Amino acid sequence: MHILVTNDDGVQAPGILALAQAMRQLGQVTVFAPDRNWSASGHVKTLERPLRVHETLLADGTTAFTSDGAPSDCVALPLLGFVDKVDLVVSGINPYSNIGYDVTYSGTVTAAMEAVIAGVPGIAFSLASQDKPANIPTDYGPAAQAARRVAQKVLEGDLSEGVVLNVNIPYLSLEAMQGITVTRQGLRVYRDALDRRVDPRGRPYYWIGGEAPTGVDEEGTDVGALLAGYVSVTPLQLDLTHYKALDVLKSWEWKI
Amino acid sequence: MHILVTNDDGVQAPGILALAQAMRQLGQVTVFAPDRNWSASGHVKTLERPLRVHETLLADGTTAFTSDGAPSDCVALPLLGFVDKVDLVVSGINPYSNIGYDVTYSGTVTAAMEAVIAGVPGIAFSLASQDKPANIPTDYGPAAQAARRVAQKVLEGDLSEGVVLNVNIPYLSLEAMQGITVTRQGLRVYRDALDRRVDPRGRPYYWIGGEAPTGVDEEGTDVGALLAGYVSVTPLQLDLTHYKALDVLKSWEWKI
Repeated sequence: MHILVTNDDGVQAPGILALAQAMRQLGQVTVFAPDRNWSASGHVKTLERPLRVHETLLADGTTAFTSDGAPSDCVALPLLGFVDKVDLVVSGINPYSNIGYDVTYSGTVTAAMEAVIAGVPGIAFSLASQDKPANIPTDYGPAAQAARRVAQKVLEGDLSEGVVLNVNIPYLSLEAMQGITVTRQGLRVYRDALDRRVDPRGRPYYWIGGEAPTGVDEEGTDVGALLAGYVSVTPLQLDLTHYKALDVLKSWEWKI
Repeated sequence: MHILVTNDDGVQAPGILALAQAMRQLGQVTVFAPDRNWSASGHVKTLERPLRVHETLLADGTTAFTSDGAPSDCVALPLLGFVDKVDLVVSGINPYSNIGYDVTYSGTVTAAMEAVIAGVPGIAFSLASQDKPANIPTDYGPAAQAARRVAQKVLEGDLSEGVVLNVNIPYLSLEAMQGITVTRQGLRVYRDALDRRVDPRGRPYYWIGGEAPTGVDEEGTDVGALLAGYVSVTPLQLDLTHYKALDVLKSWEWKI
């Protein structure tokens, strides 16, 4: 098995090292990740400029490829032939959860989408470390082990084509995790607010501020599963059609 | 009615001017768009740095706001209170169609998504001008008129919350267009290929090359509608859950 490991936080982020080490227990691993942080970058494919690829070393001394492209580029280049045939693409471990509408912004998730568009299974892994005290360094160890269990299942199982897995892991020890549960996308509640400030030269500038987003704690959703201490596995699709709205809209009288 | 007009090609792109002029026939218009091209930028929200907002003039002498943020930021800032209450957000007119999986990459579409997440109807408009000869300047006139008809319907109608409209317009005169039809997201076929080259200093670099993407011509889809000369209106949702895959995955034996 050949597993491609990428992320959107950059090749030197601690989460990707933990993920790569866990995946090495399942097969041959190639790490190919952006040379910088692309968090909240969305789904980007670089067509207007060429990309550079360099070799670099991770903190455990192993080799990784890095590119000046976006997370999706770091999936596209290997799958287009830069490396040998890939059986699975995993992305992460993102330091924060990607739940609810987050999935439409997340570079971690779009890297997995890019794999699935190319016909290779893709899994995005995110750790809800926003739930830990800020003064404690993030421990990716338990999350990496949970990620290994999920990836192993996907390699053994028969995941349908076109399914992206979005996995969120609670910030708990492996023993404290309640298990792995399959969920639907929950509701995220954003609490953004416009924060107008004035710079030292008297000119205004704006932060998208406000409180951190929360989620609606509902059973069966990614939000609810995380809050209950479960590893949440949400299957995502790339067909964004709102089928329920189709018939309503078809009943409208449209005239050019 | 107060309509916010934005795009992902930058405030000085011809498509946004045509769209703003058409929307002025329906109500009060505020143009708020990025100061540069963000095509294929995906869904981005800028949280790590503050944003600047400037006034600028469009080619018809009207005022517009521009920001150094992404398309979604140019929706978030006005909706968070930079301008008065907004009734509708329209994005475009993108010079190329956004069909099939394109919607997961498209900045034009994500601007409309950002509006819907904030509870305001959002419509993305794209023109299939890739179908015209490259040596003819793009005429956004007929597309702008078609966009006006669609926007008018949405303002009159009762579009459900959570529905993003993705509208693709064929590159035809208004008379030649076959009508407006409601569609589902079709299948895009990407023909990307890795194009390795060597720079003048002997170092490799990579283009994501290959042929232009094509689509599967299927009735009832955005791809099929465009090819048949129709304006395609596809309702999109922000719940990406792959519901068909849920039960299959739930039947797997998951162990932490």
